[in-house]
Amino acid sequence: MNSTFNYLLHVSFVAASLVSTGEYLIAGEAAAYDKTKKAELRELATTFFGVLPAAMPGSEEDNDHRRHLGEKLYFDTQLSKNNSISCNSCHRVDQGLGGVDNAPGSTGAFGGVGDRNSPTVLNAGFQLSQFWDGRAEDLQAQAKGPVLNPGEMAMPSEEAVLDRLRMDDTYRALFVKAFPGAETALTYDNMAEAIAAFERTLITKDRFDDFQRGDDEAMSDLELEGLETFTSIGCTTCHTGPLLGGAVYQKVGLVHPYENFSDIGREAVTANEDDKYKFKVPTLRNVAITGPYFHDGGIATLGFAVRKMAYMQLGLELTTEQTESILAFLGSLTDKSRTGR
Amino acid sequence: MNSTFNYLLHVSFVAASLVSTGEYLIAGEAAAYDKTKKAELRELATTFFGVLPAAMPGSEEDNDHRRHLGEKLYFDTQLSKNNSISCNSCHRVDQGLGGVDNAPGSTGAFGGVGDRNSPTVLNAGFQLSQFWDGRAEDLQAQAKGPVLNPGEMAMPSEEAVLDRLRMDDTYRALFVKAFPGAETALTYDNMAEAIAAFERTLITKDRFDDFQRGDDEAMSDLELEGLETFTSIGCTTCHTGPLLGGAVYQKVGLVHPYENFSDIGREAVTANEDDKYKFKVPTLRNVAITGPYFHDGGIATLGFAVRKMAYMQLGLELTTEQTESILAFLGSLTDKSRTGR
Repeated sequence: MNSTFNYLLHVSFVAASLVSTGEYLIAGEAAAYDKTKKAELRELATTFFGVLPAAMPGSEEDNDHRRHLGEKLYFDTQLSKNNSISCNSCHRVDQGLGGVDNAPGSTGAFGGVGDRNSPTVLNAGFQLSQFWDGRAEDLQAQAKGPVLNPGEMAMPSEEAVLDRLRMDDTYRALFVKAFPGAETALTYDNMAEAIAAFERTLITKDRFDDFQRGDDEAMSDLELEGLETFTSIGCTTCHTGPLLGGAVYQKVGLVHPYENFSDIGREAVTANEDDKYKFKVPTLRNVAITGPYFHDGGIATLGFAVRKMAYMQLGLELTTEQTESILAFLGSLTDKSRTGR
Repeated sequence: MNSTFNYLLHVSFVAASLVSTGEYLIAGEAAAYDKTKKAELRELATTFFGVLPAAMPGSEEDNDHRRHLGEKLYFDTQLSKNNSISCNSCHRVDQGLGGVDNAPGSTGAFGGVGDRNSPTVLNAGFQLSQFWDGRAEDLQAQAKGPVLNPGEMAMPSEEAVLDRLRMDDTYRALFVKAFPGAETALTYDNMAEAIAAFERTLITKDRFDDFQRGDDEAMSDLELEGLETFTSIGCTTCHTGPLLGGAVYQKVGLVHPYENFSDIGREAVTANEDDKYKFKVPTLRNVAITGPYFHDGGIATLGFAVRKMAYMQLGLELTTEQTESILAFLGSLTDKSRTGR
């Protein structure tokens, strides 16, 4: 009897918290935004972010032949030693997925699990560099890596990859079409360049950009409140530019440490102690569908990721209301063109 | 050329880290344990933990009729308002799952998501109380809660539940068999008692108990090293007894805070400020298959959960080796009887 009573007390507690916790996004709590206020917020957003450009850097020389070849390569499991995985296995661009596999670490050709979270391939070519630690300067350089990584696609050598592709009449013809005039069309560099050409087509479209372009109805009041919170508490120190990230390296654990002390981040690339625990700031475009979060995929929910980032990087203890509005804002960054949202 | 070179450098870095990071559990690194050392470790384990008892408290009055009725109720979606979910929807005991649904928060009958992670029902009756905040004193009291919680199964009243059950000839007969001699067999209390009787059968079996019972081959050297690490660094301050948890309440964020500042934990039950952020210490039996972790399901991986617990509760920065061995040890707590492991 006593425990039933306690439970019922708690039911009301839970019911009340439905309205006020980060996991329940109830519209209608935010202050109403009128036309003037929306125009101000649009100007603020444009200052910090701006819309995604229509074309990706380096795409000037791309053409349909090259993009078509790249797409075929991107989905081809022949690029892994035992024909088990393709680029798309870890960076999923099909089925409404956000360019990731939603696993903390991805599974390689032989079943090993990587210790870093696969970053999204969508919009990737807009970033200052590739990989969490920025060790590849562009998409082409990135594409060469996982194919040969023993923990990923595990091909023994560039030559072994080319041997496979050369045995395929279709590939031989496609490479010649994609790289006309080249003395040897079917090279490892050209393979990577074709994959990059395909990846340069992977640009998202979302309601945040609709709002920035002038659509006053594109975002809810709670989402706009989240945009205000996001810009006012300091998130934009790192999450700036059209990607809301991808533009700078930053130490994870700036004010309070991140509890994975084993991954030293960019120091492994630069051998500079100042780069210990530095990682490329990830883009927040599509963030709602690209969990789990952080470089090791250690964080399960976006709500906790937001709370943890605020505390760890800014020293802030976010309230439920702040978390809730920021989560709503981040939801406006979800790709409409692939997910139908 | 330069970026390829950098990448290859990194490949070796990654390859080296395969052996040394928490996500890759490579056997053979641990020191060899001989018969004497194993006997010492067995004594240590028995002091801190001991094997799971063969029967659960309160099961003395249980019988097959009651357990059978309870099992039927446990899997029956009629206990939710729109017939969409059963007890088993959030606390999955089928398909080799560890008594949970592996979601950060569980989805209620009408699609809302709870802000606490569904705890495992396996071994639950061995715990000092039920729910993360201990607001139900036993399994029977617990079973009454979610059925009526508007965010969970959302039945409007006890009477509404009984009305449904009474309309079913089979249930009417089963209740009479399960509670013979009762003036009214089909009551809400008896429904909960039958579910509890079923839940009292849910006891796991694992290799850690095999080891504690004397099987020197039950655990690998790395797992034994993890047991030593676990007991030596202070985890046993809270994770004690046969469940490696479930015996005390403790503040989450003892040395460094947990970043979700909105869920005050047991304070909501006791109205005592000293209980702010206190939660029942969860059992570690089956922990490897019951993620995501912590009361809000905010942590995605067991490796990060271990590192974060060590830092947050003990102020320790775990090395890769410590994390790896503890993870191996925790793997020995996975239920063999349900998962075949």
